Amino acid sequence: MKDKKYNSFFANNVPQNSVINEPLPRPKYDFAVAFPDPDHFPIGELHQSLGEALKDQGRDLVFYPHPQGLLEFRQLVCKKVKENRGIDVGPENIIITAGSGQSINLITQLFVDPGDTIVSEKFTYSGALRVFERFGAQMAGVDMDSEGMIPDSLTNKIEELQTKGITPKFIYTIPTFQNPVGSDMSFQRKKEILAISKKFEIPLFEDDCYADLRFEGDNHPAIASLPETDNVLYSGSFSKILAPGLRLGWIVAPDTFLPYLMAVNPGTTPSQFTILSALYFLRENMNEHIEGLTNMFRGKRDCMLGAIGEYFGSEVEIIAPKGGLYLWLKFPEHVDVDPILPIAREKGVIYGLGNTFSTGDNANNYIRLCYGYHNLEDTVAGIELLSNVFREQGILKP
Amino acid sequence: MKDKKYNSFFANNVPQNSVINEPLPRPKYDFAVAFPDPDHFPIGELHQSLGEALKDQGRDLVFYPHPQGLLEFRQLVCKKVKENRGIDVGPENIIITAGSGQSINLITQLFVDPGDTIVSEKFTYSGALRVFERFGAQMAGVDMDSEGMIPDSLTNKIEELQTKGITPKFIYTIPTFQNPVGSDMSFQRKKEILAISKKFEIPLFEDDCYADLRFEGDNHPAIASLPETDNVLYSGSFSKILAPGLRLGWIVAPDTFLPYLMAVNPGTTPSQFTILSALYFLRENMNEHIEGLTNMFRGKRDCMLGAIGEYFGSEVEIIAPKGGLYLWLKFPEHVDVDPILPIAREKGVIYGLGNTFSTGDNANNYIRLCYGYHNLEDTVAGIELLSNVFREQGILKP
Repeated sequence: MKDKKYNSFFANNVPQNSVINEPLPRPKYDFAVAFPDPDHFPIGELHQSLGEALKDQGRDLVFYPHPQGLLEFRQLVCKKVKENRGIDVGPENIIITAGSGQSINLITQLFVDPGDTIVSEKFTYSGALRVFERFGAQMAGVDMDSEGMIPDSLTNKIEELQTKGITPKFIYTIPTFQNPVGSDMSFQRKKEILAISKKFEIPLFEDDCYADLRFEGDNHPAIASLPETDNVLYSGSFSKILAPGLRLGWIVAPDTFLPYLMAVNPGTTPSQFTILSALYFLRENMNEHIEGLTNMFRGKRDCMLGAIGEYFGSEVEIIAPKGGLYLWLKFPEHVDVDPILPIAREKGVIYGLGNTFSTGDNANNYIRLCYGYHNLEDTVAGIELLSNVFREQGILKP
Repeated sequence: MKDKKYNSFFANNVPQNSVINEPLPRPKYDFAVAFPDPDHFPIGELHQSLGEALKDQGRDLVFYPHPQGLLEFRQLVCKKVKENRGIDVGPENIIITAGSGQSINLITQLFVDPGDTIVSEKFTYSGALRVFERFGAQMAGVDMDSEGMIPDSLTNKIEELQTKGITPKFIYTIPTFQNPVGSDMSFQRKKEILAISKKFEIPLFEDDCYADLRFEGDNHPAIASLPETDNVLYSGSFSKILAPGLRLGWIVAPDTFLPYLMAVNPGTTPSQFTILSALYFLRENMNEHIEGLTNMFRGKRDCMLGAIGEYFGSEVEIIAPKGGLYLWLKFPEHVDVDPILPIAREKGVIYGLGNTFSTGDNANNYIRLCYGYHNLEDTVAGIELLSNVFREQGILKP
């Protein structure tokens, strides 16, 4: 065990069995990861915006950036969350991050010691679960309906934990186009969830990174738009409306948390170069660009729903999400999709395993399919291929 | 204490008294921070490189980047550290970071629990000290000479700690153009320091972020170039040869540490946008660009040394550094420069306080002056102004 020679030097919260997993090559049809569409990534526009930005303020790149991110960019975020999410906040309460991944990482670092508990929707974002796990958190999953986390179930879960002497460190919720389920929380439900977090005096982490991609239905203001949200941390992302490769997101942090979050965040301000490019592009084109994206993704959703109807038939349960980038498919209880994934990969198509999104319950009979990346033709061809694999493997009836 | 309402939810290592310090406005003459020169920041070239990169692989920005950073960029780093620093490493052992700040943060996170001890040069980089402090580390400073950390003093310090039952978590050293002292560690000294770390089986963190900026003297290969360095973490930076605003650095991590470092680093890969721009620029122009920079900074160093000779006279001790971006000035023992800084700022000039670089000893009679940012004329004018302030305040003789 030569490689473990220095493990005794590690901090208490570093997992002693860490391994590097090289990312596998992407197969022809990748429905596993929520990539956006490369044809709608504004490459030329961002390059041009950067050129303008560098003319105006390129010399300032020799300075170390403001630790919360460029002021003008934080102001743009304020305008955006005010308009779309109803959140009234000044730039002094915004932290620009290297995408949602970093936001989740920072917030988890702020709260979680090994053995602590986090409450979340029963199924939730696999990337968040990986971070929570790495910090040694236990998950407590709450039942869901088409509006997401069910208030009574949340209350019951917290009370159940309390009887064991456990106070969860925070409630993690994705109210809008919940990942992976696609549920959409009403404003009324948001009020109820906030009220529960206030009643029990537990911090609440609202991950709203899909909110821009609404195809239909009313836009519900964020939980962070409600009065008295000094216990609410809100995070948003530009990964879905620009591109993940830019690594740009933000946190809205009330004064109760802001200085502490900054204390766990030294030296990791995102590139000013990228911020300037995004700033100059978005301040002219944001709403128009998002409108174009939602129209395009709506078509892709409909296309994938149609293909699943055609090739999977009535053996799967599926709810058409009102936005976001994925479908959540439920197979009959006895089905186990996990061992099929390597076979499907071999044939050129991959999907997200239900279990990677589960806070505890067996989710062998769930998969997540993302429709953001492929064009319509490839979407249909990939879903057909996947249905063939599932049929050959006895997951779907012949 | 409304703002402390949720503090009981924080992780154990989060300081309970965190505050946000808004950066102060920059005065006319800023000798406090090691900014590079805005006239030599290749703004247009980086923009053009990005354009080429986006043509080639812009569509790949829709993918989530490799967690260690773009392979081609890691390969460029390998080539660079092989040529300049003698380090033979493959891209699988490189982690691209958002600058030295993030490298220091990650490595500290990997090792340090509150109350742990870090050994370093007696005077060292203030930014690193801030991160160490935030993670609750105690510092143990080692005496220095013109080659940096003195081997016998290092051995004595470790043995002294051992008698108290303390094993330091790592040795932090800046061998090349040590910040703030400017010392330059010979290859022989590096072998001795490594041997001590191996003898006591303590990890060693070699921060080499100034190594590119050598004005004179032999280039000494890095500690990480020596055989049997499975206890050595090496970090480098592009902040000094491109610009801090890009936020780009790297860690060379042996297998003993690599997977654990990646486990503390989820979701914080730097922007692919910035990486592509730097990649396409550096792979064509790196050596030529660095040569231009060192010639320019050498002139600035000489200019500031001359101005200090003229305006400060023989009352300060100073050693001309062979590279880097700063001078370390020692005033007579009785002097206290700390209360003068706000007065100097008022007059339009600032400097780095010796105490911010100290691991413990009183350093009231030291200042650090950076010569990277201002042009020659402003350097002379700023040093003259500073000497006037020091004279008025009794720090220098009338």
